[in-house]
Amino acid sequence: MGVPSTALFTDRYELTMLQAALRAGTADRASVFEVYTRRLPEGRRYGVIAGTGRVLDAVENFRFDRDVLDFLADRHIVDEATLSWLADYRFRGDIWGYPEGEVYFPGSPVLRVEGTFAEAVLLETVVLSILNHDSAVAAAASRMSVAAGDRPLMEMGARRTHELSAVAAARAAYVGGFATTSDLAAGFRYDIPTVGTSAHAFTLLHDNERDAFTAQVESLGSGTTLLVDTYDVAEAVRTAVEVAGPGLGAVRIDSGDLLLLAHRVRQQLDELGARDTKIVVTSDLDEYAIASLAAAPVDAYGVGTQLVTGSGHPTCSMVYKLVARAESDAPGAPLRAVAKKAMGGKTSIGGRKWAARRLDAEGVAEAEVVGSGPVPAELQDRQLLVELVRGGEIVGREPLDAARDRHIAARGRLPLSATQLSRGEPVLPTEYQ
Amino acid sequence: MGVPSTALFTDRYELTMLQAALRAGTADRASVFEVYTRRLPEGRRYGVIAGTGRVLDAVENFRFDRDVLDFLADRHIVDEATLSWLADYRFRGDIWGYPEGEVYFPGSPVLRVEGTFAEAVLLETVVLSILNHDSAVAAAASRMSVAAGDRPLMEMGARRTHELSAVAAARAAYVGGFATTSDLAAGFRYDIPTVGTSAHAFTLLHDNERDAFTAQVESLGSGTTLLVDTYDVAEAVRTAVEVAGPGLGAVRIDSGDLLLLAHRVRQQLDELGARDTKIVVTSDLDEYAIASLAAAPVDAYGVGTQLVTGSGHPTCSMVYKLVARAESDAPGAPLRAVAKKAMGGKTSIGGRKWAARRLDAEGVAEAEVVGSGPVPAELQDRQLLVELVRGGEIVGREPLDAARDRHIAARGRLPLSATQLSRGEPVLPTEYQ
Repeated sequence: MGVPSTALFTDRYELTMLQAALRAGTADRASVFEVYTRRLPEGRRYGVIAGTGRVLDAVENFRFDRDVLDFLADRHIVDEATLSWLADYRFRGDIWGYPEGEVYFPGSPVLRVEGTFAEAVLLETVVLSILNHDSAVAAAASRMSVAAGDRPLMEMGARRTHELSAVAAARAAYVGGFATTSDLAAGFRYDIPTVGTSAHAFTLLHDNERDAFTAQVESLGSGTTLLVDTYDVAEAVRTAVEVAGPGLGAVRIDSGDLLLLAHRVRQQLDELGARDTKIVVTSDLDEYAIASLAAAPVDAYGVGTQLVTGSGHPTCSMVYKLVARAESDAPGAPLRAVAKKAMGGKTSIGGRKWAARRLDAEGVAEAEVVGSGPVPAELQDRQLLVELVRGGEIVGREPLDAARDRHIAARGRLPLSATQLSRGEPVLPTEYQ
Repeated sequence: MGVPSTALFTDRYELTMLQAALRAGTADRASVFEVYTRRLPEGRRYGVIAGTGRVLDAVENFRFDRDVLDFLADRHIVDEATLSWLADYRFRGDIWGYPEGEVYFPGSPVLRVEGTFAEAVLLETVVLSILNHDSAVAAAASRMSVAAGDRPLMEMGARRTHELSAVAAARAAYVGGFATTSDLAAGFRYDIPTVGTSAHAFTLLHDNERDAFTAQVESLGSGTTLLVDTYDVAEAVRTAVEVAGPGLGAVRIDSGDLLLLAHRVRQQLDELGARDTKIVVTSDLDEYAIASLAAAPVDAYGVGTQLVTGSGHPTCSMVYKLVARAESDAPGAPLRAVAKKAMGGKTSIGGRKWAARRLDAEGVAEAEVVGSGPVPAELQDRQLLVELVRGGEIVGREPLDAARDRHIAARGRLPLSATQLSRGEPVLPTEYQ
């Protein structure tokens, strides 16, 4: 893709800060950075952390090789001393975070990066890029999967977003509850099941719809999905069943009044004896459109634009903030909490934090508790942060299905109002201790 | 990045259509696909085509190498005959399109891909991914650059979008009028000038603001930009000028009431003798916030979230549609227009199209004219599509600055109402001939 290392997914100011801190002797101060968001997107009840696995890959590959160092030198971005330091760089600190698929709320410390200032400050941009993008898609996916109930969701948004963003979006959608993707790169990279049969172009290529359906069934079998809205839907359904027989796998409707069409097509298929032929709909769906089809005879949904653009919220507002650092340059100096304090917003709460989700007697979550002192005994086994990187070694890798399963479980422990689609406040309050 | 070729940025259905067409004997029918959008995002006056250069890179690298073929075989995505065909694939057709940076309107045929059905259908997803993403960012960038006037714009959104989406966004922002980027990968890949000095974390790392400013100035020189809103802005400005002297390059304000603060800080800087010290603002700006600061003493704007998310419209709705194909399987068979015709939307206009922008007597654009017959004589030299790929060879490469310059020129020929920020209709009507 023309970029040799994740180390370049970095804002220039991180390197200039590094250079200045190296010269000032403050670069090695032990530091704690935390990732959190001050708010959820307007009206959303919960967030979904996604991209954690990609963060681990990015940290592992964050190296300044010769190409990168030559670029930094040629453009006079940093001085010689900094280039030497970068040549030996690898992250040797610790990272803890909410495990992937977990839900989060305003103030949740979803990732904590600890190390020297120098080694931890460099990760800011790539960590935020990944978590902000992937979590935005996962949150939309989660809402759509609630709306879809037991019906499978297919991710089809690759064409609506950057080509590699699409791969990450398919992954995040899978974490959020989607079953499959149309994107072959996502199948290749993350082994997500891929789906797809044909577009309108295939029908238009042939002299008539019957020829197109015949060509498709001969090649892909009668279990395939035929697209029935190129010309007249009713005629297409009749032709489809004539060509494929009553064992036709599915028909896809990609335009028009899906609610009306689904009912009509279901009736027509049943009358034609194709009672097991499924109906797939795929036209500019979002969670609300999916919910509105709950009572319609639809068997699966394909979602594109609104999924990969976070259904109105294409990014999260996660930030990466220094919350504590060594009191002095002395080795082993104790940490002190630090925070931005200017009037007018963007203030932060200093201190290295833990987080726990308090449950009520029925096991339903009732609060997100965040603190920087000792963890209360009753919350010890409700802690949310898990170890991801220890002394630079990745220890938090897991299969993608683990994140997907975790999300369903975590969402299931939220109060019932979490999954209503209407706008509202975060379903859990965040309490600071 | 874990994906070996642009050929995987493809929806599975393109390969299954290919398989079925190969078997049916229709795969080699000459075909014309066009990219266009049915509408601009609500309220927008014009679109900006961006990503064309990236499309050419993607087409050039669109090859099915061993890794890709093994994946397709292992997952039983296509049959042996199709795998053999793919192994030899390279695009050998023609591509014409609006040159990068040009403006466009609903119905503008911004890209036309001609070849066999087989070779042209495969490019759908990657072409749309690139154009939909990059054009969305460029459109937002263009509006922001109008609002900013002569003041430079810095792209700082990497942390708010996928890490590689960020690189393309920086490129598209440059086309749309931005001057620089914070993203080192964009500097590396596209040679866009990079900028950045320090974040709040750098101030918080040090024992006090004076130590932080001193460290920064010692390392980066007095021409650097000091961030002045970590604690108290007025105190920080005083300290900044004391530490750096009146030759301080700039101060940056990243929170609070920017309008008020810019006036206060300007007055303070002037009183301190730092008359040439610039003021940079960077807090959640969009084109409206930039416009609202037009009368404030601001020297440069840094824009993040709203730029990389297209300022409310993170994607365009461009589609890739078969508009004409050979009448039969006979070699040299003439083309016939084809179009989806189902009731209920997503219909298209068939036929291989030209486009031209008609100017009035003063040289101001008055209509986007699109047709599929002969080009009227008076529009011959107003045609918009240029040759990009000829017989599979890339012929349309150009430096990124050419696209940037073209955008300024094209926007300058639009009616004056094009650049008002308020919502409205497309500034040019699209006429079909």
